[in-house]
Amino acid sequence: MKKIIKNGTIVTAADTYKADILIENEKIALIGQDLTDPAAEVVEAEGNYIFPGGIDPHTHLEMPFGGTVSKDDFETGTIAAAHGGTTTVIDFCLTDKGKPLQDSIDKWHAKSHDKSVIDYSFHLMIGEMNDSVLEQLPSVIEDEGITSFKVFMAYKNVFQADDGTLFRTLEEAKKLGALVMVHAENGDVIDHLVNKALEAGQTDPIYHALTRPPEVEGEATGRAAELTGLADSQLYVVHVTCEEAVEAIAKARKKGYNVMGETCPQYLVLDQSYMEKPNFEGAKYVWSPPLREKYHQDKLWKALKTGDLQTLGSDQCSFDFKGQKDLGKGDFTKIPNGGPIIEDRVSILFSEGVKKGRITLNEFVDITSTKIAKTFGLFPQKGTISVGADADLVIFDPNVERTISVESSHMAADYNPFEGMKVTGQPISVLSRGDFVIKNKEFVGELGKGNYLKRSRYGELTSSKEELYQK
Amino acid sequence: MKKIIKNGTIVTAADTYKADILIENEKIALIGQDLTDPAAEVVEAEGNYIFPGGIDPHTHLEMPFGGTVSKDDFETGTIAAAHGGTTTVIDFCLTDKGKPLQDSIDKWHAKSHDKSVIDYSFHLMIGEMNDSVLEQLPSVIEDEGITSFKVFMAYKNVFQADDGTLFRTLEEAKKLGALVMVHAENGDVIDHLVNKALEAGQTDPIYHALTRPPEVEGEATGRAAELTGLADSQLYVVHVTCEEAVEAIAKARKKGYNVMGETCPQYLVLDQSYMEKPNFEGAKYVWSPPLREKYHQDKLWKALKTGDLQTLGSDQCSFDFKGQKDLGKGDFTKIPNGGPIIEDRVSILFSEGVKKGRITLNEFVDITSTKIAKTFGLFPQKGTISVGADADLVIFDPNVERTISVESSHMAADYNPFEGMKVTGQPISVLSRGDFVIKNKEFVGELGKGNYLKRSRYGELTSSKEELYQK
Amino acid sequence: MKKIIKNGTIVTAADTYKADILIENEKIALIGQDLTDPAAEVVEAEGNYIFPGGIDPHTHLEMPFGGTVSKDDFETGTIAAAHGGTTTVIDFCLTDKGKPLQDSIDKWHAKSHDKSVIDYSFHLMIGEMNDSVLEQLPSVIEDEGITSFKVFMAYKNVFQADDGTLFRTLEEAKKLGALVMVHAENGDVIDHLVNKALEAGQTDPIYHALTRPPEVEGEATGRAAELTGLADSQLYVVHVTCEEAVEAIAKARKKGYNVMGETCPQYLVLDQSYMEKPNFEGAKYVWSPPLREKYHQDKLWKALKTGDLQTLGSDQCSFDFKGQKDLGKGDFTKIPNGGPIIEDRVSILFSEGVKKGRITLNEFVDITSTKIAKTFGLFPQKGTISVGADADLVIFDPNVERTISVESSHMAADYNPFEGMKVTGQPISVLSRGDFVIKNKEFVGELGKGNYLKRSRYGELTSSKEELYQK
Amino acid sequence: MKKIIKNGTIVTAADTYKADILIENEKIALIGQDLTDPAAEVVEAEGNYIFPGGIDPHTHLEMPFGGTVSKDDFETGTIAAAHGGTTTVIDFCLTDKGKPLQDSIDKWHAKSHDKSVIDYSFHLMIGEMNDSVLEQLPSVIEDEGITSFKVFMAYKNVFQADDGTLFRTLEEAKKLGALVMVHAENGDVIDHLVNKALEAGQTDPIYHALTRPPEVEGEATGRAAELTGLADSQLYVVHVTCEEAVEAIAKARKKGYNVMGETCPQYLVLDQSYMEKPNFEGAKYVWSPPLREKYHQDKLWKALKTGDLQTLGSDQCSFDFKGQKDLGKGDFTKIPNGGPIIEDRVSILFSEGVKKGRITLNEFVDITSTKIAKTFGLFPQKGTISVGADADLVIFDPNVERTISVESSHMAADYNPFEGMKVTGQPISVLSRGDFVIKNKEFVGELGKGNYLKRSRYGELTSSKEELYQK
Repeated sequence: MKKIIKNGTIVTAADTYKADILIENEKIALIGQDLTDPAAEVVEAEGNYIFPGGIDPHTHLEMPFGGTVSKDDFETGTIAAAHGGTTTVIDFCLTDKGKPLQDSIDKWHAKSHDKSVIDYSFHLMIGEMNDSVLEQLPSVIEDEGITSFKVFMAYKNVFQADDGTLFRTLEEAKKLGALVMVHAENGDVIDHLVNKALEAGQTDPIYHALTRPPEVEGEATGRAAELTGLADSQLYVVHVTCEEAVEAIAKARKKGYNVMGETCPQYLVLDQSYMEKPNFEGAKYVWSPPLREKYHQDKLWKALKTGDLQTLGSDQCSFDFKGQKDLGKGDFTKIPNGGPIIEDRVSILFSEGVKKGRITLNEFVDITSTKIAKTFGLFPQKGTISVGADADLVIFDPNVERTISVESSHMAADYNPFEGMKVTGQPISVLSRGDFVIKNKEFVGELGKGNYLKRSRYGELTSSKEELYQK
Repeated sequence: MKKIIKNGTIVTAADTYKADILIENEKIALIGQDLTDPAAEVVEAEGNYIFPGGIDPHTHLEMPFGGTVSKDDFETGTIAAAHGGTTTVIDFCLTDKGKPLQDSIDKWHAKSHDKSVIDYSFHLMIGEMNDSVLEQLPSVIEDEGITSFKVFMAYKNVFQADDGTLFRTLEEAKKLGALVMVHAENGDVIDHLVNKALEAGQTDPIYHALTRPPEVEGEATGRAAELTGLADSQLYVVHVTCEEAVEAIAKARKKGYNVMGETCPQYLVLDQSYMEKPNFEGAKYVWSPPLREKYHQDKLWKALKTGDLQTLGSDQCSFDFKGQKDLGKGDFTKIPNGGPIIEDRVSILFSEGVKKGRITLNEFVDITSTKIAKTFGLFPQKGTISVGADADLVIFDPNVERTISVESSHMAADYNPFEGMKVTGQPISVLSRGDFVIKNKEFVGELGKGNYLKRSRYGELTSSKEELYQK
Repeated sequence: MKKIIKNGTIVTAADTYKADILIENEKIALIGQDLTDPAAEVVEAEGNYIFPGGIDPHTHLEMPFGGTVSKDDFETGTIAAAHGGTTTVIDFCLTDKGKPLQDSIDKWHAKSHDKSVIDYSFHLMIGEMNDSVLEQLPSVIEDEGITSFKVFMAYKNVFQADDGTLFRTLEEAKKLGALVMVHAENGDVIDHLVNKALEAGQTDPIYHALTRPPEVEGEATGRAAELTGLADSQLYVVHVTCEEAVEAIAKARKKGYNVMGETCPQYLVLDQSYMEKPNFEGAKYVWSPPLREKYHQDKLWKALKTGDLQTLGSDQCSFDFKGQKDLGKGDFTKIPNGGPIIEDRVSILFSEGVKKGRITLNEFVDITSTKIAKTFGLFPQKGTISVGADADLVIFDPNVERTISVESSHMAADYNPFEGMKVTGQPISVLSRGDFVIKNKEFVGELGKGNYLKRSRYGELTSSKEELYQK
Repeated sequence: MKKIIKNGTIVTAADTYKADILIENEKIALIGQDLTDPAAEVVEAEGNYIFPGGIDPHTHLEMPFGGTVSKDDFETGTIAAAHGGTTTVIDFCLTDKGKPLQDSIDKWHAKSHDKSVIDYSFHLMIGEMNDSVLEQLPSVIEDEGITSFKVFMAYKNVFQADDGTLFRTLEEAKKLGALVMVHAENGDVIDHLVNKALEAGQTDPIYHALTRPPEVEGEATGRAAELTGLADSQLYVVHVTCEEAVEAIAKARKKGYNVMGETCPQYLVLDQSYMEKPNFEGAKYVWSPPLREKYHQDKLWKALKTGDLQTLGSDQCSFDFKGQKDLGKGDFTKIPNGGPIIEDRVSILFSEGVKKGRITLNEFVDITSTKIAKTFGLFPQKGTISVGADADLVIFDPNVERTISVESSHMAADYNPFEGMKVTGQPISVLSRGDFVIKNKEFVGELGKGNYLKRSRYGELTSSKEELYQK
């Protein structure tokens, strides 16, 4: 059935204007003032913004980690995402060294296809780079539309790849039209610092931060950036947290290297002191890389403004405090890394970014949606409000004031790291391909209705081949 | 009469998509696929891009300079602009120290109002800052909608203002919601170097470049940027030409200062060696700041890509070679500064930027139009293709190959500095507020039909007050 | 009469070793172990360091300033200097625009020649640069041995020179073999900020700091450095106080520009909060540039360590709190700028620098003496302990602990800005050209015994022409 | 027997002055003018400089490499060193993983003790860092006086250590008072690039350079520097060749990290184009890191001037062109890395540095001798001309002009990489602990007369504990 969104203020990465939107066949069919169509359901949006649906480029739903599994799966995770104004997620498909990549991808399809309430796609982790892996990559791209590969420079003896693997992945990505993503921390040094801390009986959550200082992130980011320049390839640094890493990215960009960076809401508004909360509550704030001292926040905001950082991911990977996070009592290395963020990503950037004058409204849309779609081969199907695009829309009230709390959250974990934080603005209704998923703040979607998205090669338009977006 | 632009590919600073545009009452009324309206004239655009009309933020039409007057006036200048895909110009209104500002503005209105074939606006030059000037500024903003003031750090004893004037202008601009523009070269040092050269008998055009080296531009740019940070104000550096100035701007932006930079086509594709052409032809290439050594071009392109430079102006200020430029034979200081650029600004950025992969198509639109509209208080009336915006549109054939030449130019001067340069892409038809100015490469507009544009205060939306675009 | 300094540890800018020194005819005649000479007076120095006498490159003795005169003249000033381990001062000779330079120099000779107890020399201030001044400079260098010229970028309408004067001075200095010194603050901006503060009734001493923020120093330092590079000349930035200025100097040096920087003890150990002391005591801490926020101190120390700053001056210019500083009650612009520092310069750098591990003992000697002698054309006659050099020596007890206080000071002012500060190390005895000036902490010198020193051209050795020290 | 060096100009890292030197019992006993002693041999040095003997901190004498052994052993190598004005070498003792460190040290003693004609010492290579190695280090320092450990970041599967080993070595070095030296190139990436080149049939010497580009050196240098800052330790980067590495070191030093850098004569005067010489002659110029494009030379010279690089080593590791270098015909990876440099190190820096005005005479002494002695725990026994120091002296004629050639060289290899280069200045006579090794350009020394030098801990004075030189 057709719909008309009436009287809202449409916001894209470039524009802010008042107009109506006609939706037909899952797509945006028409944009104009005072649209009418007797066959259409009218959705009143006076006083609200209409944003393109948020895209979360960084989630770990139902992910095995350290003997447990992240709490939110593709059901609760995507429902929470939708509540928060996100209509697409790109989840990380983990692989096992030596096993066929397709096996892992199949496993990820199995987890998601009958659960996700919004559209979704996968990145693929690369743990090693050898002739066998090389042979499999073209079909991963062609058949699965997976065009971004993640390499870990940390998690020694688990995920960590050596510099040779990173470099070859960069070379292959260039050849194949893929994007390399990197978790940039020096795993060797962390491994040693962690062992030293444990030997010294330093087992509290705060030692998670102290054994992965900003220097190891800055160093690894600079290393990955330099290798990218050498390979003349493209790199996306996930979850950037600190001044050191921002400067490494800025330096590379200035040299003309194609290096991009993502940060996450937790790094913009929380700081290292949270990890010292008593009663083991510090464990709720354990991410890798860890939260940093407060002055880094200003550097991240400035980098979002100047474009040295381009996107915001959630790094969603939630665990209950009781029963999961507390596995790390007496040994911080056993605390599952991550937290429930997917629902609050968009609202926090709006409230802390736009409302506080740090970024413009258009930059906000770019950072939470448009730039992500362009970077990961989803544009212009996703990431904007233009005729022909999927009708993934968020009707957003910019003035409502509310307090984030686990009680009102839709994520599965038993706590919310932003508990008590006041934010301004909230998604009221959310549409995925023209259908409501959220209507007046209530979930009205359907399990499994989300489509798996094959993505374009890096630098290609999905609708035509004539343009390079990111070069 | 209504019009429908059919089957073109619409390009904005964010989007690229195929759709039709319905124009009504000078505005964009509707965007959709397969639009039909029996009352509308249909304009076929299959295979072409539809860009928002270019905005030239930097012109000097019919400007007195050194005893002569720039050749293109608001008639030939705006016709040429339209041919080149530009539908708005912002011209610099010069003032005389000690005289009422309104007198100068009136003089500029008199030159333009019955000549301009496209919409236009004015910047105002500030030569001194004292109580009298201070008192006049609010009405300049309120009554004339002039919200950008230019200060010269060069042209000693002519336009040059001292640092106190620059700083006070920055302070006032912050208070009043205006933007300070600066010509950043150290006039004292130039004055000395010029005198020394003349005393040494160094009178050829190349000495114009050698007496205004990049260091004097880099120094002045850094100085203006630092004063802007101190005043917590906003600055737009016109015609940035060199690595030194780019680095000064980048450094300021990294510190969070609101400093922006413009470059011009001549600095992107021409270099200092042109000034050594025999038979005094070097005089054709005399600008201030001067053309630089070739390696600076790469720095300017990279800065447009990273966002350390944001816009492209023409600095249009044309003079005939015979009868004007040759006033400087035997004394380079008597060569009128400037050249005919207004017509080729958009095409050169498309051909050298987009076609050569240095910037994306969306970045091209941002740099030649959208960002300029946002910066100078014209958005969203101008600078984009969105419902409700003025129907200033360029139908652009991206594939035609042609050679720039004075013969095919519409500018008044007797030479073209880009003579012989091959470019790809050309505006085919151009609309200003819904009416053709250029149709199939022919001028079909009307003298005086262009409107004078009062501009919003810096940081304000024209359509609403709720958003800050540039903070 | 000959002397042998026995059993001390000789320290130079390069060496630390135990040996005896034989002094004969004002010079160091012999260095060896277990020296004996029946005709020599033996001075026991066991347990002490022997340093080359300190050189203070920046003093204002008996200087007129704002209607008063600095308290210490060449008598009290040089006696205090000697107590503090300084055996040479270079004082700034102020000039009057339009008057013969020689008149000013003669005035300075008259003030000093029968008072100074240690050797001394003059820098010359350049307030304007025109043909008349140009004609006088060669004789200033040849006849007076004055080879360093100071230009002020601040003190608008008093000392301030424009950029043309600065640039021409740099050009002339290069030609003539002189060194340009610069007081780097943007006087135009300061002038405006000061007027604004006064109009707002902000008259307390702290407003002296707030109207000359680090940005105006950083900007001016960068400007002067850039002009130096352009002129391919040499520059010495006096009294560097802040990170911004340090970075400007470091950037210039990295480009290969010959730019040097001096800081002063007050900037290393005091901070802006002193200017907020009650009862107008903040006036005691009024310097130009002003004291800065505390974090700048670390930048200055690091710059001394890396060599981006090279020397330590006192900027000695003392005034009584009562009767002089209090002229500024109710109007901070009337507070005479400066303070009594000459006596504590060496001790503070030893105690805070060497003893706290920030610099080495050899670097300490370089910073307080050797590098200054080399920079200002006094080396190797002054600034080192080598055979043939003047026997200007300091016997220094590195372990004595004491508290700085006006009571134990020998400077004329009625307060000491370092009052109550604990330092380790003290000059015990001081020799000037082989004679004791201070013996066991008592003054034993003679008024007028100090010689006026004609200095070599910049870059020349005094003993031979074959070496360039600073290129 | 006593000696008096008469009438020379003594040059140290700080001083330049004319005086005589009396030598007694291997030491400098007395410095003064017109020294006489009937019992002393008089050595006339009028018109010559007297330098402290050069110290070469980086040699590989008789070193096994890729199936062959470097040509110069401790006999020919130290004789050539002495001819070139070097009186101390510090050679790298290679170790074997899993074997006792003492075994390797003993092997190095065996090679050197009856051959070296000048004093010498050893650095120790660290290939792995585990409990066993940790236990051995204290005795290496105490018993052998080896206080500098080298870690390789390149030579994958041969010498390369991982980042954990590097970091632990930095931590241990801090604890034990040792200095970590690092060969900074990313071995993983090089390994891949080399394999790719060989697979592509790219086997000529130039591919040695192309497979180890500046980026891999810059990256590794930055990584090592960052780890040093994190460990609050000390680092010495050997053979720095390029802008990227210099900038990494400069950045670290600016942050206050204790990171030092060495370059070598070949990088200052030769460039990558030498590796393209026909007839396989490019192999003569194969070093790791490789020669770079010419513009890097200027960066290295500027860094020596600003102090971002501190020392000059030779990286002496000579091979015959015939029979050794030609092992790599058809496969550049089989070319033994290195060349004969030890003899020309001092002369090249004097001629290209001092004579061409890039550094001062005192800086030259610091870079070739004094700073090295201080850095490696040999000062003040070595590295200066002061009373009590070893009489290691070079009598140097600064004006003789000559051409470097293999014919006049004393190194064992069958070619000289500087063949045909004109230099000004030459060591005439050289003394080691008071005895002539070279007299009037003839070798007059004695095999095995050189002593093995136990070195002080990092930061300690050899003569006393009271001073830290490098903090």
